[in-house]
Amino acid sequence: MFTGLSAFPLTPVPGNGSVDEKAFAALVERLAVAGVDSIGALGSTGSYAYLTREERARVARIAVGHADGVPVIVGIGALRTRQVLQAAEDAQNAGAAGVLLAPVSYQPLTDDEVFGLFEEVTANLSIPLVIYDNPRTTHFTFTDQLYARLASLPQVASVKLPALPADPAEARARVEHLRRLLPATMTIGISGDAAAARGLNAGCDTWYSVIGGTFPEPALALTRAARAGRHEHALQESQRLQPLWDLFARHGGSLRVVAAAAAHLGLTSHHNLPLPSRGLNAEERARVATVIEQLRLNT
Amino acid sequence: MFTGLSAFPLTPVPGNGSVDEKAFAALVERLAVAGVDSIGALGSTGSYAYLTREERARVARIAVGHADGVPVIVGIGALRTRQVLQAAEDAQNAGAAGVLLAPVSYQPLTDDEVFGLFEEVTANLSIPLVIYDNPRTTHFTFTDQLYARLASLPQVASVKLPALPADPAEARARVEHLRRLLPATMTIGISGDAAAARGLNAGCDTWYSVIGGTFPEPALALTRAARAGRHEHALQESQRLQPLWDLFARHGGSLRVVAAAAAHLGLTSHHNLPLPSRGLNAEERARVATVIEQLRLNT
Repeated sequence: MFTGLSAFPLTPVPGNGSVDEKAFAALVERLAVAGVDSIGALGSTGSYAYLTREERARVARIAVGHADGVPVIVGIGALRTRQVLQAAEDAQNAGAAGVLLAPVSYQPLTDDEVFGLFEEVTANLSIPLVIYDNPRTTHFTFTDQLYARLASLPQVASVKLPALPADPAEARARVEHLRRLLPATMTIGISGDAAAARGLNAGCDTWYSVIGGTFPEPALALTRAARAGRHEHALQESQRLQPLWDLFARHGGSLRVVAAAAAHLGLTSHHNLPLPSRGLNAEERARVATVIEQLRLNT
Repeated sequence: MFTGLSAFPLTPVPGNGSVDEKAFAALVERLAVAGVDSIGALGSTGSYAYLTREERARVARIAVGHADGVPVIVGIGALRTRQVLQAAEDAQNAGAAGVLLAPVSYQPLTDDEVFGLFEEVTANLSIPLVIYDNPRTTHFTFTDQLYARLASLPQVASVKLPALPADPAEARARVEHLRRLLPATMTIGISGDAAAARGLNAGCDTWYSVIGGTFPEPALALTRAARAGRHEHALQESQRLQPLWDLFARHGGSLRVVAAAAAHLGLTSHHNLPLPSRGLNAEERARVATVIEQLRLNT
């Protein structure tokens, strides 16, 4: 399940309002039709951290219900262990194929605290778990030693890496190092869309993808090429999307850009992020629209 | 209200359990008896970010109910604006004298997003608000320009600074700069206990204090000395407490240390932090106990 393209859709949340469940269901259906390998509901792109337990449980059920058999991975991160345990229970009850757990922090966490969190959660879990390493949002930095400790826990099946070295040989060496460190059954995934082709070419099994959640076709083309050993083709596909990566860099990450893109495509309303997140202004949205048209991503 | 010693008690939360309301009420009563100038319920020390809306509302009511007329400031920070608005409403209904708002983040926030949050919250607020600047936990960095914009909003009455320059002259210059920047009605508060004496000596109006929530007497002695112009006395009192500041530095902040201290004093059980926070181990707790005994803080 944790190989190929894992596509992370937005959860459209208008300002102070409730989840736009109809738009979310349609986003999920679109990914299933495109043939992605798995769907990552309630990832960072899915605004999991901003929703109530009830909202998250409903979103998980909608994702599974509209995925047409494509495995759904559900984000279960929260500040408190008790909340994570509840989210894990709700994800399992919704029929999730796996869960994604980030060590979200307010008070900085120690390695032992993060291990304890994963230990308690996996002891209560009957489906596979992906370690979600995203220091930009969690402000927790994993060590290789902690990866290895976590890999010894039941159900730990994959890791979602935040980045790899830019140099192809160094990236490959890093993936090989992780292969030796982790059980053979565990898959290694890259996130950070701009680095995905390099990551897949370096040997990653999967791309945990933001743009895959809104533009599944180019993300699938890139993934299929890299996984089939057509490394140059994968890099070319990534280079073609460079104007998108530039927008991500300009706007401090991918979320505001894919939110504007989804609205431009008519997949959601323009107010699709939970306040205080405000999304892009009219001028910035126009620039996103221009890039989408130029790259012919609007088909 | 936002002058002198503002003491921030723990909210005792055992692991995955519910708030120990009885212990919390006693902590608040202890602060009122000691004569602190205000009580900061549900600050970072009060684990506000880990509690549900219902738990926070109950804690706010208990704080006001046991404060014996001492003004209670209630922390209302949350990831989503909607949650902050709810917490503000609950704090007002509980009888809070003021609220404390930190721009908690998961997705990094822009200045405009933080301004928008404060604008929406203050538009719905009938009691004073303290800007809570704590980049260590919120991962948001305020600029002076943003301070000035926020100061123009109704109800904004104080700012809780994370730090000041170590050099006394520079610290004084910084406070004077802020005085010119902010309305005369706004007070300036220091946090970071180890720097409190320097901050008060530099002209801060108030100390938003962690140790004041567990050891009100020495915190009051330090505050009274500094505010009366006995600057050397304040510094000596702070130097006397240096073993505590050393423990804070050793354990990545004050929370784990004051949690261990409160348990050592018998004010809470040993499990008084919400998981995944694990508090100190037995050896570390013994070291905290030794420092408390040596400083005669156990009287």
